[in-house]
Amino acid sequence: MSIITLTTDFGTKDHFVGAIKGTIYSELPDARIVDITHEISPFNITETAYILRNAYKSFPEGSIHIIGVDSELNDDNKHIAIKLDNHYFICPDNGVISLLASEVKPEKIVEINIHDRFESVFPVLDVFVKVACHISRGGTLEVIGKIIPDYKKLVEVQPTISADKSTISGNIIYIDNYGNTISNINQKLFQEIGRGRDFEVIANNYSFKKIYNKYSDFIDFSLPKEQRQKDGTKLALFNSANYLEIAVFRSNLNTVGGASTLLGLKYRKVITIKFN
Amino acid sequence: MSIITLTTDFGTKDHFVGAIKGTIYSELPDARIVDITHEISPFNITETAYILRNAYKSFPEGSIHIIGVDSELNDDNKHIAIKLDNHYFICPDNGVISLLASEVKPEKIVEINIHDRFESVFPVLDVFVKVACHISRGGTLEVIGKIIPDYKKLVEVQPTISADKSTISGNIIYIDNYGNTISNINQKLFQEIGRGRDFEVIANNYSFKKIYNKYSDFIDFSLPKEQRQKDGTKLALFNSANYLEIAVFRSNLNTVGGASTLLGLKYRKVITIKFN
Amino acid sequence: MSIITLTTDFGTKDHFVGAIKGTIYSELPDARIVDITHEISPFNITETAYILRNAYKSFPEGSIHIIGVDSELNDDNKHIAIKLDNHYFICPDNGVISLLASEVKPEKIVEINIHDRFESVFPVLDVFVKVACHISRGGTLEVIGKIIPDYKKLVEVQPTISADKSTISGNIIYIDNYGNTISNINQKLFQEIGRGRDFEVIANNYSFKKIYNKYSDFIDFSLPKEQRQKDGTKLALFNSANYLEIAVFRSNLNTVGGASTLLGLKYRKVITIKFN
Repeated sequence: MSIITLTTDFGTKDHFVGAIKGTIYSELPDARIVDITHEISPFNITETAYILRNAYKSFPEGSIHIIGVDSELNDDNKHIAIKLDNHYFICPDNGVISLLASEVKPEKIVEINIHDRFESVFPVLDVFVKVACHISRGGTLEVIGKIIPDYKKLVEVQPTISADKSTISGNIIYIDNYGNTISNINQKLFQEIGRGRDFEVIANNYSFKKIYNKYSDFIDFSLPKEQRQKDGTKLALFNSANYLEIAVFRSNLNTVGGASTLLGLKYRKVITIKFN
Repeated sequence: MSIITLTTDFGTKDHFVGAIKGTIYSELPDARIVDITHEISPFNITETAYILRNAYKSFPEGSIHIIGVDSELNDDNKHIAIKLDNHYFICPDNGVISLLASEVKPEKIVEINIHDRFESVFPVLDVFVKVACHISRGGTLEVIGKIIPDYKKLVEVQPTISADKSTISGNIIYIDNYGNTISNINQKLFQEIGRGRDFEVIANNYSFKKIYNKYSDFIDFSLPKEQRQKDGTKLALFNSANYLEIAVFRSNLNTVGGASTLLGLKYRKVITIKFN
Repeated sequence: MSIITLTTDFGTKDHFVGAIKGTIYSELPDARIVDITHEISPFNITETAYILRNAYKSFPEGSIHIIGVDSELNDDNKHIAIKLDNHYFICPDNGVISLLASEVKPEKIVEINIHDRFESVFPVLDVFVKVACHISRGGTLEVIGKIIPDYKKLVEVQPTISADKSTISGNIIYIDNYGNTISNINQKLFQEIGRGRDFEVIANNYSFKKIYNKYSDFIDFSLPKEQRQKDGTKLALFNSANYLEIAVFRSNLNTVGGASTLLGLKYRKVITIKFN
């Protein structure tokens, strides 16, 4: 039986998540349910896409991912179920899929049509769970919706490249639990444009001449401990999702701060790479 | 094997929840454990009742609900296990059950008497888990307690109706993850007293002439997008639990605020419906 | 199949925890995964040790505990897997084990050597999960590492005892969800040094002549309710982990405050017991 994952902006205090899991277990006593997160900023589909994009591929093929963010059914916001990259996604047709997996051609898309005449105020519970259980039991998408050719496209802010290929300009798209700030510039783009040239990463007034592959790589372990660089060092690295990240070593948003607060790198802030 | 749910004010940082789950798995290797929430405001049994009331019915019959809020055993606070609405609840006898399910006649109530002479500082782990595992294995309540005729009653603040049935006055009883504010006035009461009359909902200085059935119902989708009403619109609706809720469309407590902060609708604040 | 627990400082918003669970389920479809906590203060291994020490013993023998705090592999920070007290721990060799279980002799310790040449920026996902699944399938430690004689030792701040055994001085080592403050003085030490003598616990300007065994023990239930001491009473007790704790009865950090804020008992603050 497939795994069902949950990605929502419901928080973990209200009754919503408990009610969803109870409903799934009522239909599928042996269900395996995994919380990706319930702490999406309310209605933020960019954040939803960033998190789920970096999580879903770790799950077995055939997993079913419920996206409960901005999912109220109305004339502008239909419900879809989609098979893509051998995973299923059940979500509103609000563009989240295009941000999540724009480069992957979907295998099948249906507009869900099992809604009763009464339009539910809680469609994740009343509709998405029903669809997820149907798929988990091996049911086909055609039974719960009508095939449509495409989903709604949203164009996320993309990095821009200067005409002479001397600069890449991107933006901060996510701030993580440590206050590290993640840009939309990935390693592949950096390598294609840079072709091994020297470079400088510029973020606010800060400049980085090196991009590391892990956080502690800037430390010179040949030095005695007391002469080494310390916590609080700012650095650029390609993170585990292969995006350029500006980090502060061993940061803590609740005490000393992190890159987002210490370097003033807020959501959408510009990050530039200049090649020599 | 029955599902065991957990509703506590323990938070998710301390070791308490992990220790409880470890103990359950030690007794029942195949247990299915679901967190309803661990973020109840400390000792707040009104909040506990609101959340669990709206979650427990989604679980299969026979599910066992552990309530770990204000559960220290003392002369004023006995421990009970109760079968009600085909669900089991294990909790302190502090009135939480009366707030949770006052309208349902319990099938059986026992005062738990398996405590050792040493009174535990952590009864949810030492007592409630033991009782839950006993019930989950099919054991009867009589084995872990002595039958008592009733549980402690607490009267929650109830809406009041004017003698001439021209007004209903209720209170905000819960504020959700989006800052939406939920009153104790349900749709049934509204319909019984209102009988189709015109009305005005008054909350602080704000007035609402309509109660919607979902959040986006106020939007006129026949208008072009740029002429439609926008995020931040305040509205009244009956929520998924059928209670009158004052909401702000697409609110976010961490950025723009929500109904609780923007409209000054704090816990216990009065909401009035005037019928014409 | 063994339980796998997770103790990290990753938070529950980012994709890290979801990705870890997806990877475990991909390797072990029937895995049982339990979150101890993901809310460790970033890089805080003292806190990690306090929480896991109080949680792990509740799990069945053979359980596998992944510790994802400060786990980046570098010259100073090797990865180890350890069998100790019939539990497995997979963690960085940064001293966390010595804080967690200094009194227990490990049965076997290996330095993990399954890393690829490329050193991962996300070793909990890429290395620890692989090791956990290997152990869960019944694999031996020797297959994933080379046996080493010992792990890195860190000495936690220990209580000090005056030469004449008239005082014990300890420190606050943890602040819980209610703002209660927990010291490193345990009941055993108190009894060994005190030998039944009268005493005074001193914390900041506050003094306690009694140490209770549960929170409500200070209440005189023979008095009528309105004459009893109330919420907000400060007290000393031995908590469920058997450590001396300074608490405020029914505290709430979000409203009235707790012992940490009301009594100024911050992390590392000194607590003294004077015997007469």
